[in-house]
Amino acid sequence: MSVNFALSEIATYLDAEIRGDSELRITGLSTLQDAGEGQLAFLANPKYAKQLSETHASAVILSADKAADFKGNCLIVKQPYLAYARISSWFETLTLEPAFVHPSAVIDSNALVSNDVYIGPNVVVEAHAQIASGCHVSANSYIGARSTLGINGYIAANVTIYHDVRIGEQVRIHSGCVIGADGFGIAPKPDGSWEKIHQIGGVTIGDDVEIGACTTIDRGALSDTKVGDGVKLDNHVQIAHNAVVGDHTAMASYSGLAGSATIGRHCIMGGDACIVGHVTVCDNVQLTARTLVTKSISEPGSYSSGSTPLMTTTEWRKNSVRIGQLDALARRVKKLEQ
Amino acid sequence: MSVNFALSEIATYLDAEIRGDSELRITGLSTLQDAGEGQLAFLANPKYAKQLSETHASAVILSADKAADFKGNCLIVKQPYLAYARISSWFETLTLEPAFVHPSAVIDSNALVSNDVYIGPNVVVEAHAQIASGCHVSANSYIGARSTLGINGYIAANVTIYHDVRIGEQVRIHSGCVIGADGFGIAPKPDGSWEKIHQIGGVTIGDDVEIGACTTIDRGALSDTKVGDGVKLDNHVQIAHNAVVGDHTAMASYSGLAGSATIGRHCIMGGDACIVGHVTVCDNVQLTARTLVTKSISEPGSYSSGSTPLMTTTEWRKNSVRIGQLDALARRVKKLEQ
Amino acid sequence: MSVNFALSEIATYLDAEIRGDSELRITGLSTLQDAGEGQLAFLANPKYAKQLSETHASAVILSADKAADFKGNCLIVKQPYLAYARISSWFETLTLEPAFVHPSAVIDSNALVSNDVYIGPNVVVEAHAQIASGCHVSANSYIGARSTLGINGYIAANVTIYHDVRIGEQVRIHSGCVIGADGFGIAPKPDGSWEKIHQIGGVTIGDDVEIGACTTIDRGALSDTKVGDGVKLDNHVQIAHNAVVGDHTAMASYSGLAGSATIGRHCIMGGDACIVGHVTVCDNVQLTARTLVTKSISEPGSYSSGSTPLMTTTEWRKNSVRIGQLDALARRVKKLEQ
Repeated sequence: MSVNFALSEIATYLDAEIRGDSELRITGLSTLQDAGEGQLAFLANPKYAKQLSETHASAVILSADKAADFKGNCLIVKQPYLAYARISSWFETLTLEPAFVHPSAVIDSNALVSNDVYIGPNVVVEAHAQIASGCHVSANSYIGARSTLGINGYIAANVTIYHDVRIGEQVRIHSGCVIGADGFGIAPKPDGSWEKIHQIGGVTIGDDVEIGACTTIDRGALSDTKVGDGVKLDNHVQIAHNAVVGDHTAMASYSGLAGSATIGRHCIMGGDACIVGHVTVCDNVQLTARTLVTKSISEPGSYSSGSTPLMTTTEWRKNSVRIGQLDALARRVKKLEQ
Repeated sequence: MSVNFALSEIATYLDAEIRGDSELRITGLSTLQDAGEGQLAFLANPKYAKQLSETHASAVILSADKAADFKGNCLIVKQPYLAYARISSWFETLTLEPAFVHPSAVIDSNALVSNDVYIGPNVVVEAHAQIASGCHVSANSYIGARSTLGINGYIAANVTIYHDVRIGEQVRIHSGCVIGADGFGIAPKPDGSWEKIHQIGGVTIGDDVEIGACTTIDRGALSDTKVGDGVKLDNHVQIAHNAVVGDHTAMASYSGLAGSATIGRHCIMGGDACIVGHVTVCDNVQLTARTLVTKSISEPGSYSSGSTPLMTTTEWRKNSVRIGQLDALARRVKKLEQ
Repeated sequence: MSVNFALSEIATYLDAEIRGDSELRITGLSTLQDAGEGQLAFLANPKYAKQLSETHASAVILSADKAADFKGNCLIVKQPYLAYARISSWFETLTLEPAFVHPSAVIDSNALVSNDVYIGPNVVVEAHAQIASGCHVSANSYIGARSTLGINGYIAANVTIYHDVRIGEQVRIHSGCVIGADGFGIAPKPDGSWEKIHQIGGVTIGDDVEIGACTTIDRGALSDTKVGDGVKLDNHVQIAHNAVVGDHTAMASYSGLAGSATIGRHCIMGGDACIVGHVTVCDNVQLTARTLVTKSISEPGSYSSGSTPLMTTTEWRKNSVRIGQLDALARRVKKLEQ
């Protein structure tokens, strides 16, 4: 797993101005605080600027203004955080196996699997599924009937993809994910029991999507549930049937869309932020952690609800009980005003 | 996957009054908005009534009052949504395999597996487990020792059922589910560490239950955790040890019951609604999204807490900081009144 | 599965004073309410004290003060709940298989697997992984490259452990868990799309840790995500990249730490309690259910936010709408005071 690059190679890749020893060998990435011999660090967040003078990093990625006072080896770029992100791929520790189909994999004779893919042990690929060139499907994962995986897809171990799921190119899906399970469709019967609504739509996922561990994307009731290009989903996210996630939207852990909810392009949902069913959120909206969107949003901006200040439990009890008296309190104030 | 039914066949099944071309061939289901040639749509939600005049559906399921103005082929029923639910099963896209035990499945010689079941690749069935007639256990799932699965059960891929779990008839369990893991039982030790409480109860699940993806139902500490008949659970639901879910109760995504909590029959829990430990909720209760039930409920009805109005983050910050001052504000109002 | 111990054996193990028939055979554990012939119950919670006179338990674990009025067989200890926890291990229903490597397991020739371990069907162990003495790895689980599992570890079925994950001794990991998936690291690009930050750190987990079903612990961005000794995690917990969980901290269902959040030792997080990114919580803190920690906590104690009183939905609507008017209300009160 040892890697070793010249600082000059990295500079070229990042289109960075190099200052110092361009022949320096870089063997790892680290933070300013933790970096040691051979490691490249970066300064992106101004609050860590003071660590610059004390870092043991062999070189630092930073912006021109921060470089002025720095004596060490450095790579000067406009966006240090983005530069760090880009170079991080050179230090990836996940080793992708060469193309190979493990003999224990169970691949239906009607599946269409490219020659240059890796299919790990105990992977099951059902009839008419398609796995395109460059894909890596890890151990114990399941690809349902007629589902398609675009080029260079990465499916981690223990992933489940049901039938009729269309996945774009360069998509990464982490372990425990379930794509295409039945949406939660039930109709009440006169006797108070529930009739299942069979979920006959599928799921469509765009290109360059990444899906975190234990995230679920349900199949549509009639038409497809849709996840756009460049969408990034964290762990434990829930995308219900017929929800739509716009291109390049990012959703943090536990955030979710209820049935037929739509979120636009370039949005950010904080942790545990949820959108109720049949509601639409426009492009360029940020939802802070815990926000519950109960009505449509048509103006870009940042929206919130639900999260309240942190206090001691004793203080919280005193204050929260007042929430239940708030309407009465407001009426009392109105009376006083009169 | 192509299906094709005469409108008259569908009418008979739904006990519907048919109007128009009874020989019409129906090849799919869709919404009024998206339906095309050969497709059957439905009108259930009055807010979509205006789509009726513009639909390209070949036929529509609707109620008598809505049918009055409609010129196209239609099926007239009392409950269009329920009728749609019922007919949806005719268009299911999941193909159940014929009875077969895949040679890669590992079935203990002391397991009791009916002849007419499907056991997919890499399924593991432990000693004394029982799989009844008509069951379908998909690839890479695990059935623990002494656990029983009633007739016509459907277990999707990558499901885990621990030991001593009793599952009724016609139960569907989606991928990523874990039934019977240890409940969260720990006792504090004098040194501040925790002693594990071994969870020696099991899980009992009734008939006609459906369990969504990545949902967990823990085994009981001493006696069983219980899920009644006709219960419908969405994805990411958590049922803790010794919780009880009454018959025909539906729980949306992220909703949960803490240890020994009980919810009655015919209840509905909205997304992220949770009931704390040892609390009891009676029959016919609805809990709106995000509600936290901290005390028992003994009267049917709809209950709420926690979810607040949505606003811009700027507005929210101004208002939410006041929540921390609410007790003081109430006292100030009282003083003014005096 | 039938067990049978003399009451005297149990007394010795628990260092309990025995009163009554020391030769009594105990065949199971139960609650005071449900216990029958041959069963041992316990009285820990004072609210169940009245059940003592009516129990059909053959013997009861209780404290000296409660034993005074009790005529039956009993074991007198200082901490009945802890004593029950300790003896529960004698009644565990999970049968661990003897050491054996199932022939369907796929173990890389460069993996280091002790002789006395159980490796179930379809388990995959990648190159340079290490599985120490006494471990039990259940069916269909996956152990990534270079990951290590300390002695007497228990990995349930369908668990995923990525590469470079270091797990201590006596650790139990339940089904559906994903340890070491990529943290949610993305950097914005000028065009509004996201650049992936490759997650090159690992995960370090201490000794005596238990991890509930469907819980996720992400790998670090640069250095490791860390979970201390004796930590107990419930189901659906999320530990994001570079988060740190201190020794002997317990986290209930749906609780989570965002990226680089730190919680100290001996803390308790209630259900759905979350700590936002880069925030630090000190030792000996309790967070009640639903609390969102948005700033660091440096004093031990109990903290809360977010959870409000439960009321009918009608009442809630009236009150919650006032939350959006709270800042204005406070200003009005101020004006009245002037």
